Amino acid sequence: MEILANNPDKKTWIPTPENTDFPIQNIPFGVFLTRDDIITIGTRIGDTAIDLGAMHQLGYFDGIPLTDDIFLQDTLNDFISDGQKTWRLVRNRISEVFDMGNGTLKNNENHKNIILFDLKEIEMQLPVQIGDYTDFYSSKEHATNVGTMFRDPENALLPNWLHIPVGYHGRSSTIIPSGIPIHRPMGQTMPKGAEKPVFGPSRLIDFELEMAFITTDANSLGEPIAVEDAEDHIFGMVLFNDWSARDIQKWEYVPLGPFLAKSFASSISPWIVTLDALAPFRCKGPKQEPKPFPYLALEGEHSFDINLEVDLITPEGIPTTISKSNFKYMYWSMAQQLAHHTTNGCKVNSGDMMGSGTISGPTPDSYGSMLELAWQGTKPITLKDGSERKFIQDNDTVVIKGFCERNGHRLGFGEVSTKLLPVFNSKKDKKSI
Amino acid sequence: MEILANNPDKKTWIPTPENTDFPIQNIPFGVFLTRDDIITIGTRIGDTAIDLGAMHQLGYFDGIPLTDDIFLQDTLNDFISDGQKTWRLVRNRISEVFDMGNGTLKNNENHKNIILFDLKEIEMQLPVQIGDYTDFYSSKEHATNVGTMFRDPENALLPNWLHIPVGYHGRSSTIIPSGIPIHRPMGQTMPKGAEKPVFGPSRLIDFELEMAFITTDANSLGEPIAVEDAEDHIFGMVLFNDWSARDIQKWEYVPLGPFLAKSFASSISPWIVTLDALAPFRCKGPKQEPKPFPYLALEGEHSFDINLEVDLITPEGIPTTISKSNFKYMYWSMAQQLAHHTTNGCKVNSGDMMGSGTISGPTPDSYGSMLELAWQGTKPITLKDGSERKFIQDNDTVVIKGFCERNGHRLGFGEVSTKLLPVFNSKKDKKSI
Repeated sequence: MEILANNPDKKTWIPTPENTDFPIQNIPFGVFLTRDDIITIGTRIGDTAIDLGAMHQLGYFDGIPLTDDIFLQDTLNDFISDGQKTWRLVRNRISEVFDMGNGTLKNNENHKNIILFDLKEIEMQLPVQIGDYTDFYSSKEHATNVGTMFRDPENALLPNWLHIPVGYHGRSSTIIPSGIPIHRPMGQTMPKGAEKPVFGPSRLIDFELEMAFITTDANSLGEPIAVEDAEDHIFGMVLFNDWSARDIQKWEYVPLGPFLAKSFASSISPWIVTLDALAPFRCKGPKQEPKPFPYLALEGEHSFDINLEVDLITPEGIPTTISKSNFKYMYWSMAQQLAHHTTNGCKVNSGDMMGSGTISGPTPDSYGSMLELAWQGTKPITLKDGSERKFIQDNDTVVIKGFCERNGHRLGFGEVSTKLLPVFNSKKDKKSI
Repeated sequence: MEILANNPDKKTWIPTPENTDFPIQNIPFGVFLTRDDIITIGTRIGDTAIDLGAMHQLGYFDGIPLTDDIFLQDTLNDFISDGQKTWRLVRNRISEVFDMGNGTLKNNENHKNIILFDLKEIEMQLPVQIGDYTDFYSSKEHATNVGTMFRDPENALLPNWLHIPVGYHGRSSTIIPSGIPIHRPMGQTMPKGAEKPVFGPSRLIDFELEMAFITTDANSLGEPIAVEDAEDHIFGMVLFNDWSARDIQKWEYVPLGPFLAKSFASSISPWIVTLDALAPFRCKGPKQEPKPFPYLALEGEHSFDINLEVDLITPEGIPTTISKSNFKYMYWSMAQQLAHHTTNGCKVNSGDMMGSGTISGPTPDSYGSMLELAWQGTKPITLKDGSERKFIQDNDTVVIKGFCERNGHRLGFGEVSTKLLPVFNSKKDKKSI
């Protein structure tokens, strides 16, 4: 099926700011609370949110096989389950309805009042119920930096790294959308030179610049997914900040891996940009040497040229860009990650999320974590207001942005922005469950 | 509230086999498919399954605040969300209805036909939708055995082990109920002495004798759970076989922990036995030295005396008991595990599952895995038919059983039984998703 929605020359009747991440070629999917306090599935063009539930009720998806309530849901899981063909039909239809030359909705004020919302009127939710979340460790530069710092600069990469997309299972329950503040976690750590561990607030809170992909139902229990088929099971991508407590991690992670150092919070951008929308920005990934096993071997363009940027905003509101990286630096592709994940027959469901791992580029200004940017605290970063950071301080906000640009066309993810609050105070911060 | 259901002298009018795991004092919760192909929530007395959805519709829970459809669901998650007080009211009421002296249902043939099923007529399902699954590593004997084999017998326990209940996030999507067969997984391994990894069927498939507990909604994001309150958030326990591919694990697990070596399958017993039902079998856990941090310190009886047994059934059907252990050997209690898990504010939801880790006892016949029982293949186990095992072979079935016994009263979990099939064959084993 042709992806008509990707036509770069298409223009829309929705007013769109210049350089928006959300031109009519994007058509991402998200879930939001409307001004009427109704949860719905929607898309976005420019700064206009579009209620797909309302569009469906008003007949704009007639002819596409969709259940009546497919967009009137808290999550995208069921829509994602409908599969790639349905996603394409829906994106193509949205593209038609909002095409500059199509007057049907454009000239129907009544329908527009029901379907269109200003971004300021809505509240974005987590777009999917994430059944399982896996995080990979697929940037060679990041793995090399970490190995250099903590192990042996001469043998920075562990023996398995070039053979398998190393990954681990993460915690789904603490994945939150952009805008939700988090608390500095308490935990056990072993201070340098101490003989006994201590318990208290983590002192080394870090962000991790990542992206993540969302899958559809891909297989039955026991059935591997071939690397050639893997991309068909990927719905789309989001920006991902995998918050980390480095001091907790160092003490707890042997031998079973990171646990509480990661599970206090992980934040994602709320609009899922489909793999289809990203197709014009495909590129080759880095050369893989040694050659991967056949079950991981895949020729062609399976990476994406996505510019990434991290801003740190001080408690006083002063932003500084502290890193610029790109998704294309990833050594292992998403197709390879998903194929590897299912070699053992692991079942993958609609709404599962798989993180890339920290995306560090080749130069020090493209590193994807404070750990690397400030090189274990030995090279503090100077911010625009003159203050320094080795790690993230209370009331700092970390913002990750991402966009693609090619031949004058731009398309992006918006941002994931998360403020770090001080340690949870049971008197002040207690919420009803 | 008094737990009337636990009265050891109570007798039931339901015929119950001698030595059943399911006397009227148990009243576990599960989900099953009835002979009419309807999914319902139920309990079990002896070999009789009881449809709680039908009981509720017929008014047997009148006076207890329950929504109409609370038992007419695919999973127990919503019922578990209702909280401890509701669980107790429901168990007490079931105990009353099936009490020897109560004729209301006993003498109503019409209602009995609707509510009662022979176990052979029903098909047990996964009892909860598991949002997140965590596995701990809390048996000191197991951790010591593994450390002795793979690291240094003089320093078998890693430095953090006596200070924190070490654990890691696992894969929820491949947790299956007893009776579902699994396939031997494919994967990458690094054979001893080889210079390059190989890809093929895992050669070292192992079971792990574990138990797991199921939680209710426990906290909001950011909010720790006090160790004193932790047990109030535990609904109940199941038997748990955490299948493991030792050769895949050895190659992949550094530095982020076990991944595909575990996520091919994990099986649980289908009836959740409530913590309330287990109360008469409470006991102290092992002495903890050094003294745990205050956030983990808890005096009193917070372990449970649960006899555990592992049977291996050969492809020809000959069973051999290969291990006898006990849950009381666990060094870290469930309360400590849950308190530790939430020190960082990690959100815990209804239906989350937390595994104990392999439960090995002090003697070689009480070890909880083939790795330990056959000591890395150096001491093969001889089965009743004379054949030997170092690990699990194709078409072997592993059965874990568990029960409590005190003062002549017995109560148990039934079993979790899982057959290991050969590697998935895409022509033969392909199922529709």
